[in-house]
Amino acid sequence: EVVAFAEEEGQRYKATFLGSGALVGQFNSDWLTQLDADGISMRDAMRNAGLNEKDITQIQRNPAHYLGFVEVHIEQGPVLEANDKTIGVVTGALGQRWFDVVVTGSEAHAGPTPMPLRKDALLAASYMVQLVNRLALDHAPNARGTVGMLDVYPNSRNVIPGTVKFSVDLRADNNETLAAMVASLQAEAAVIAQKGQVSIEMNQTVYFPPAAFAKPLVDAVRDSATEMGMSAMDAVSGAGHDAVYMARIAPTAMIFIPCKDGISHNEIEDARPDHIEAGCNVLLHAMLKQATV
Amino acid sequence: EVVAFAEEEGQRYKATFLGSGALVGQFNSDWLTQLDADGISMRDAMRNAGLNEKDITQIQRNPAHYLGFVEVHIEQGPVLEANDKTIGVVTGALGQRWFDVVVTGSEAHAGPTPMPLRKDALLAASYMVQLVNRLALDHAPNARGTVGMLDVYPNSRNVIPGTVKFSVDLRADNNETLAAMVASLQAEAAVIAQKGQVSIEMNQTVYFPPAAFAKPLVDAVRDSATEMGMSAMDAVSGAGHDAVYMARIAPTAMIFIPCKDGISHNEIEDARPDHIEAGCNVLLHAMLKQATV
Repeated sequence: EVVAFAEEEGQRYKATFLGSGALVGQFNSDWLTQLDADGISMRDAMRNAGLNEKDITQIQRNPAHYLGFVEVHIEQGPVLEANDKTIGVVTGALGQRWFDVVVTGSEAHAGPTPMPLRKDALLAASYMVQLVNRLALDHAPNARGTVGMLDVYPNSRNVIPGTVKFSVDLRADNNETLAAMVASLQAEAAVIAQKGQVSIEMNQTVYFPPAAFAKPLVDAVRDSATEMGMSAMDAVSGAGHDAVYMARIAPTAMIFIPCKDGISHNEIEDARPDHIEAGCNVLLHAMLKQATV
Repeated sequence: EVVAFAEEEGQRYKATFLGSGALVGQFNSDWLTQLDADGISMRDAMRNAGLNEKDITQIQRNPAHYLGFVEVHIEQGPVLEANDKTIGVVTGALGQRWFDVVVTGSEAHAGPTPMPLRKDALLAASYMVQLVNRLALDHAPNARGTVGMLDVYPNSRNVIPGTVKFSVDLRADNNETLAAMVASLQAEAAVIAQKGQVSIEMNQTVYFPPAAFAKPLVDAVRDSATEMGMSAMDAVSGAGHDAVYMARIAPTAMIFIPCKDGISHNEIEDARPDHIEAGCNVLLHAMLKQATV
């Protein structure tokens, strides 16, 4: 059975994994009343596409009828290209823990306030940004640590920042590593707060558990690539994918192909036709191996 | 001659030091057509207050007629309070050099992009924030270094920042120190850019030269405080003041009195009546010393 999923990203509505969610029985019917940018509800958009609500429940699959699921995807990162490999054998998807952080110091005039008497929220936040990056490097090569969003208040040229709010995105391939990263984040934040004479509050906003893919299917992907003489390497998926949803009901694996310059979610995202062909052939042969078991 | 100046801050119109500017012949007549938040031009506001344009030129003083100028001001900082002193003997005002800085890295997805392949503009900016603070500490106690404004692009939780724009405000009590701070800023920014695989561009936007006040008048302020048994300490002004303008045409000094909790430009700014009285008495006696020379 070949399936192309709708709306992994949630671009039109604030609802992700619409297709794979429906297959695994995780479609949230509250989404149907959401409006898109043109005021069209998801229910109407489905009807306009020849679907109705009943189709959603009919799409749901019975896991007992399936041996497994394998997905081919562009890597969306630079690893295969940097290593000059055609096929990424995806062994699992990183777990994610996201936090909202607020650093509170004290606003003051940048001229009259001597350096030792400052409670500069941005200076303390700068140590947090470096800490988040170091936590990922401490758990190389599969951990990630990113501060993507950071807002300064009052954000005025000659006022020492009184408050800084920022996001922390930690990822790792197992829960133990994630827990160790969070423990270090909290312990070292307390030291940064004390040294900087500020307070630091952290709240977890997102948790996606790590997903380990099914070894027999992962081995079938690796063996198929090798048998066809393609260069391949093991890889982890840093992003979420339909396969992570499908892994909830069936043994799952993924095949990555190279992504030009690692650029994704961008109009210039690009993949070579011979790489796409290679990915499809690995998918085919991994499937044939299941049929002959 | 006793004078209370209008609009040191430029609160109603985008024009600072209106009163002292007029006295020293630096009033910009282009300002007269500016509108305030209610649509009232500065020209009309002056007329409503019983003034006209000719008054501005009549206000200008002939330096030959004056021995000097001494200003009393709330400190707007925490130094006197922290040192439990009543009078600040202001020896001069800090010079200022402001820069706009742009760090350019490369936007990428926070999940699939391994740490060693990132060009994280915010990580590089975090080292710049610490550098700006360290440059001021290297020239203690009178230097200042502040990043007050910082904007991240695209500022999205799961995207590695591609661009960060921020302000740098450097202050010191002499031009040599300011020049040394700027030279270190540029040299160390180049190292940060190389290590972080980003580019860093800096443009100076503001330069106010340091102002050294007149020693005989500064001594008169110090001696007056001491003779009246007040606790006093030498201080520098980190902010701009009318006295900095007046110093262009006459020997100048300033007297600071303590500022509750160092908080200024805020509705809760506060000074004790006995401190205000002490400041006025120091002003009186410093003037009397000039009269008896």
